[in-house]
Amino acid sequence: MDMMDMMKSMPEGSMMGMDMAMMQECMEACSAASMAATMCADADATEGMARCASMCMNMADVATATMRMMMRPNGYDMEVMSAMMQACTTMGEACAEECRMHADTSEHCRICAMACDAMVDACKRSMSSMSPAS
Amino acid sequence: MDMMDMMKSMPEGSMMGMDMAMMQECMEACSAASMAATMCADADATEGMARCASMCMNMADVATATMRMMMRPNGYDMEVMSAMMQACTTMGEACAEECRMHADTSEHCRICAMACDAMVDACKRSMSSMSPAS
Amino acid sequence: MDMMDMMKSMPEGSMMGMDMAMMQECMEACSAASMAATMCADADATEGMARCASMCMNMADVATATMRMMMRPNGYDMEVMSAMMQACTTMGEACAEECRMHADTSEHCRICAMACDAMVDACKRSMSSMSPAS
Amino acid sequence: MDMMDMMKSMPEGSMMGMDMAMMQECMEACSAASMAATMCADADATEGMARCASMCMNMADVATATMRMMMRPNGYDMEVMSAMMQACTTMGEACAEECRMHADTSEHCRICAMACDAMVDACKRSMSSMSPAS
Repeated sequence: MDMMDMMKSMPEGSMMGMDMAMMQECMEACSAASMAATMCADADATEGMARCASMCMNMADVATATMRMMMRPNGYDMEVMSAMMQACTTMGEACAEECRMHADTSEHCRICAMACDAMVDACKRSMSSMSPAS
Repeated sequence: MDMMDMMKSMPEGSMMGMDMAMMQECMEACSAASMAATMCADADATEGMARCASMCMNMADVATATMRMMMRPNGYDMEVMSAMMQACTTMGEACAEECRMHADTSEHCRICAMACDAMVDACKRSMSSMSPAS
Repeated sequence: MDMMDMMKSMPEGSMMGMDMAMMQECMEACSAASMAATMCADADATEGMARCASMCMNMADVATATMRMMMRPNGYDMEVMSAMMQACTTMGEACAEECRMHADTSEHCRICAMACDAMVDACKRSMSSMSPAS
Repeated sequence: MDMMDMMKSMPEGSMMGMDMAMMQECMEACSAASMAATMCADADATEGMARCASMCMNMADVATATMRMMMRPNGYDMEVMSAMMQACTTMGEACAEECRMHADTSEHCRICAMACDAMVDACKRSMSSMSPAS
């Protein structure tokens, strides 16, 4: 599936002048972080990293909920989206920090931390493009 | 399942002095809001209320992610939890406001708005009990 | 929220002669199993039970998806519902079996196994009430 | 994130001789179908296609749960995975059939149907590679 084609197929006006390329990048970064964190959580449990597993499961759930919110233009609400983006970036920073502690010995933690970092960057770019002053 | 029994069975120390009765109330309120919003979204689509359907789907996803975060004490992080609670209450207030517009004609919207209100109240109580100054 | 009130508020005809009391029981059993399994997975990781943690996370995701499908009468499709119920009961039986192995030493596993058993029973009752021959 | 790198980083032995290229293809097809269906559901509600919206939401939830199950090798259980794959393909076929009815007038339905078809194909290939006789 080509995400940009899908976004262009949405009912006219629903994307409300949003920067679609930036939205797409952010959705895909959320999806990648959610996938990496789901796998990382499973591996963590084998290696006795319970806090990392727990944070990664949270990361996966928050990234999926954030991504889905971006995918539902009918329900866009700037205040809600902004609060959710804030929760997602706070979660992403905490998860990346935890994963980076084990990055030297657990390759899945290194990859997960990078996916979280990329997601945080993409969310911050989307948030700044959404701000009324932009 | 008795939620309080489950919470008491968690590894010692993991609930970190949290107010378990308040946590339980908040988890159950998130669960109820998620269920009400999932059903409301389905009914809304039949009745041409696309914005309401979209917000209710978002509500269900955000409430589920928030509830799960509360259920994973190993990953507790005050800053993350606080940001997620903020997103959940902002979402709950917006969803309740939207649903209340149709409460006179759609009973499911009236019930969903009440479930959102109850969840927002429970989250706010949990948040205030978590604050360092409390 | 009173689930039966919510179900009765759904658009007329959408529940299609389903046994609402049985549906309600099944939705609530899925919700309880999902909550128990989410908490059990978090505790398992602390106690080195990686397989149990992984199965519980799967249980939580499958039970939530099954519950949501039941909550969307507009999309009812007997063949799909039946396959999902089958997946949910197979998952519930496997998760209960795994959790029961640790029930003597981990109270959360004992509670989770019971919640899975109750969910399997409720799903089986719902499935038999849905069968064309019933 | 490169999914194959992530899969290779999982604890040794956890992928249990599974065909990783096929697993990766299937996870990515589930992710794409989940994203397409989430967006399609939102657009459907605007256009009065309530059944399509409902089936697409179900599709998104089932595909996400199936993908996550594949991403948790610690919990692999052939019987459970097989039942979940069956549910996912049954759902994918039903959703694709519904979406195809509106493919001429709704581009998002056309794209969603194709994403469902691709996911069904990928799941079937994975299922046949998992069968004991293969």
